[in-house]
Amino acid sequence: MEYWYSEMHTDNVKLGFRIKKEIAHVKSKYQEIHLLETYEYGKLLVIDGTVQMTERDEFIYHEMIVHPPMVTHPNPRNVLIIGGGDGGAAREALKHEPQEVHVVDIDEEVVKIARKYLPSVSSSYLDPRVKLHIEDGINFVKKNRNFDVIIIDSTDPVGPAEPLFTHEFYEHMKNALKDGGVISQQCGTPIYHPEEVCRVEKLLKGLLNYVKIYLACIPTYPSGMWAFVMASDKPLKIRRKIDFKTKYYNDEIYHSSMVLPNFVKESCEDDED
Amino acid sequence: MEYWYSEMHTDNVKLGFRIKKEIAHVKSKYQEIHLLETYEYGKLLVIDGTVQMTERDEFIYHEMIVHPPMVTHPNPRNVLIIGGGDGGAAREALKHEPQEVHVVDIDEEVVKIARKYLPSVSSSYLDPRVKLHIEDGINFVKKNRNFDVIIIDSTDPVGPAEPLFTHEFYEHMKNALKDGGVISQQCGTPIYHPEEVCRVEKLLKGLLNYVKIYLACIPTYPSGMWAFVMASDKPLKIRRKIDFKTKYYNDEIYHSSMVLPNFVKESCEDDED
Repeated sequence: MEYWYSEMHTDNVKLGFRIKKEIAHVKSKYQEIHLLETYEYGKLLVIDGTVQMTERDEFIYHEMIVHPPMVTHPNPRNVLIIGGGDGGAAREALKHEPQEVHVVDIDEEVVKIARKYLPSVSSSYLDPRVKLHIEDGINFVKKNRNFDVIIIDSTDPVGPAEPLFTHEFYEHMKNALKDGGVISQQCGTPIYHPEEVCRVEKLLKGLLNYVKIYLACIPTYPSGMWAFVMASDKPLKIRRKIDFKTKYYNDEIYHSSMVLPNFVKESCEDDED
Repeated sequence: MEYWYSEMHTDNVKLGFRIKKEIAHVKSKYQEIHLLETYEYGKLLVIDGTVQMTERDEFIYHEMIVHPPMVTHPNPRNVLIIGGGDGGAAREALKHEPQEVHVVDIDEEVVKIARKYLPSVSSSYLDPRVKLHIEDGINFVKKNRNFDVIIIDSTDPVGPAEPLFTHEFYEHMKNALKDGGVISQQCGTPIYHPEEVCRVEKLLKGLLNYVKIYLACIPTYPSGMWAFVMASDKPLKIRRKIDFKTKYYNDEIYHSSMVLPNFVKESCEDDED
C-alpha cells in the first residue's frame, strides 16, 4: 500500500507527497492540523489542507521572512512574530541576538505539535528571550507597542488569519511599530493569486513610505514562486551584515529577491489603475 | 469523472494536473509524447512522463533560456538551438533579429505536434530565418560551425538527450561556437538533482572561461526551482538592451537570476573537492 497526501493548489493542480505515516491529527478550536511523515521532505505540517512547512525546505521560507527585515533594521532589539507558532521564524530571529522575540499565535495546538514533534524548528521556545502569547494577533498589537521588527508569518487570508489581512489590523500594527521599524509579511503566490500579493502591498503602501515585494522559490508551496512584502518608513537597505551561517539567504539575495519578473510587477500596476 | 495527469518529480513527490482531454499521443522512434489539455495551464506537452512545457508558464523557461545568452552577445547573427523542437526558444531568439536560427531536434514528432497544436510556441517555424534540422545534436555540431549563440534546450539527461550531457558533445559544441560566442543550457533542479547542475557547470568550466549558473522559478517543473548555465570565453554581462516586450525577463533579472542561494552555491563547491 502507498499513502499519498495531496494539497490542492487550485481546483486543477495538486502536489502529492508519499507518506510514511500520520504522526498527529488535531482539530483545534480554530483549524485542523495534521503532521505527516513524508519520504521526500521529512515531517510535513498541514493546517486546513494547506502545507505550512516541511522539515526539508522550511529554511527557505523562514530565512526569507526573517533575515531581510532584520538586516534592514540597524539594531532590532524587540521583535514581534504574528503567527509562526511552529517557532521557525523565532529561531531565525534569535540569530540576530535581539532582546526579546514575541510569538503571538492564536492556536496553542500548533505550538504543542511543533514542540513535541518538530524540535528543529521549535527549539527556539527553549530560549528565554522568546515569549509565547496564545492570543489573537489584532488584540496583541492593540495593546503592545515599540517593536523594531514585526513579522507576519500567518496562514493564508482564508480562515483564522483573515483579520490579519485587513486595514484595521494594519493600522494597529503600524502603531505597534517603533519609528524606523520594519515589517515583513508572507503574501502568497503571484502565479495563482497575484491579487493577494498586490492587496498586501497596497495596504502597506497606505501606511509606510517604503514597500517592496520580494520573492523566493519554495518547492512545497503552491507554484513554488512565493511572495513576501517588506515595509518601513525608512529606505529598505541592508544596515547590518549577518555573522551566522544561512542555507538560503545572503546579502546578494537581499537585493535579488526584490527584482521582480515583469508579469509580477505589472499585475500590481494594473491593480493601481 | 475527473481525469488527472501526474508527473512523478521523485519517487515520493508528484505534481498533478486536472485534464480536460488528451489531444495527441505518439510513440516516436525516440520517445513517448503526450499533448494534454489541462484546466489550469492550457496545453501541456509531456515527453516520456516529463512535463516539457505548458502554454501558461512556458514563457518563463523560454525567455530565461534565450534572452540571457542573447543579450550577452554584442550582435547574435547565427543562433543554434539544440532540442527545442516545440519552437518556443526559436520564437524568443527571433525577437533579437538574428540572421538565422537553426533548430536541431532529433525527433520530428515533437515538431509535428507543436506545429499542429501549439501555434503560440511553434509559430517561429513560419519565419524563413528559422531552419529546422531533424538530426542528432552531436552530428550537427560536428559538421556546422560559426554560431554566435548556442542554446541547449534539451530534455533531461536520461533518454535521447543523454549524449548532450557528455564531454564529447561539449568539445564539438565549443568548436561550433564562434570566438566570443555564448552558450546556455537548462540543467534541472538544484533541489532534487544538484549533482546534474554541478556536472553541467563543471563540463562547461573545462571549456570556457566564464560560466555561471542562473535560476528561475518555473511552476510546472519539479520543485519549481530551475537552473540554467551560461558560458562564454568573454565576461558574462549585458551588451545589448532589448527593445521588445517580455513577460518574465528584464535587465535586472539578468543579474538577479545569477545570485544563488547558499545551498546551491555550496552544493557545487562540495562537488569540486
